[in-house]
Amino acid sequence: MPEPSTIASHRIYTGKVVTLDVDQVRFPDGSTGELEMIRHPGAAAILPFLSDPAGDDPQIMLIKQYRYAAGGYLYEVPAGKLEPGEDPEDCAVRELREETGCSAQRMQHLFTTYTTPGFTDEQIHVFIAVGLTRGEANTQPDEFLEVHTMTLSRSLQMIQQGDIRDAKTALAILYAAGFSAGA
Amino acid sequence: MPEPSTIASHRIYTGKVVTLDVDQVRFPDGSTGELEMIRHPGAAAILPFLSDPAGDDPQIMLIKQYRYAAGGYLYEVPAGKLEPGEDPEDCAVRELREETGCSAQRMQHLFTTYTTPGFTDEQIHVFIAVGLTRGEANTQPDEFLEVHTMTLSRSLQMIQQGDIRDAKTALAILYAAGFSAGA
Repeated sequence: MPEPSTIASHRIYTGKVVTLDVDQVRFPDGSTGELEMIRHPGAAAILPFLSDPAGDDPQIMLIKQYRYAAGGYLYEVPAGKLEPGEDPEDCAVRELREETGCSAQRMQHLFTTYTTPGFTDEQIHVFIAVGLTRGEANTQPDEFLEVHTMTLSRSLQMIQQGDIRDAKTALAILYAAGFSAGA
Repeated sequence: MPEPSTIASHRIYTGKVVTLDVDQVRFPDGSTGELEMIRHPGAAAILPFLSDPAGDDPQIMLIKQYRYAAGGYLYEVPAGKLEPGEDPEDCAVRELREETGCSAQRMQHLFTTYTTPGFTDEQIHVFIAVGLTRGEANTQPDEFLEVHTMTLSRSLQMIQQGDIRDAKTALAILYAAGFSAGA
């Protein structure tokens, strides 16, 4: 199948989290156009299980976090962006500890996904964490969050009722619920 | 729970799809900082069913679309961004027709989600479309896509095998599979 090619790339802004490029692109039909592209280093997210994920309605942990973009608090899985060159699993271990204070006996990669490929190359690597030991959380100054514990079935209800509104979180929960049940 | 407040907002770039603001924010502890915020008008996405969604392993439709951000083709539900003031359901009807040539007897809203709230306010409104009538697709010059038909169970397999890598698409499929089955 045909693929567009890059003619030129213009860096508009280099930020702490995102970088904005406007690329001039030639399409397979010979026409040209500009595409706005948010470059992002990628992220890791973790669905922490407090009991056996394969057991009967296991307990999970979510954080309730202020999101400036949403103008309010969202329930989310712990997550954070990759440091340069960082292995996604190392990032998952670090973010789980920073945001919940927990360390895990085992991290298992579930899936990697493009968050919104129409305008950003961001990919999120999603893990489940099992065998948790609780410690002290160590959040960043711009993070305001609470840790919440609930059953997996309760979190599914919250997705269906629109109370979980973050895409990676709903996807992690539905993925874990669907596929660990052998779907 | 405490909420940060905006001190000032600086528009860095106004594009066709995204707008970049850098906002100066005061956090509840009194400290201040800058947040990069990609403003986006929001989008609608549609999971089209070719047979009864409640029936035995229904047929669905996905598009395989070139994504510059991914440097390749992704399987996705038809989707597109909202025009100013556009009702999400009207956008869903329009995008379904443009990308697949189909019109639907009924659009049903499934959920609305923040795609990646760490740096953008983009929300996607996700619908299922049932009772499809086929017509002529009318894609945009920068869209290169094929329409694929498959069973819902096949699409679940593709999520599990990592062949569906777009978040809204995996979420729409898992949501429809989980909750239309009465989970």
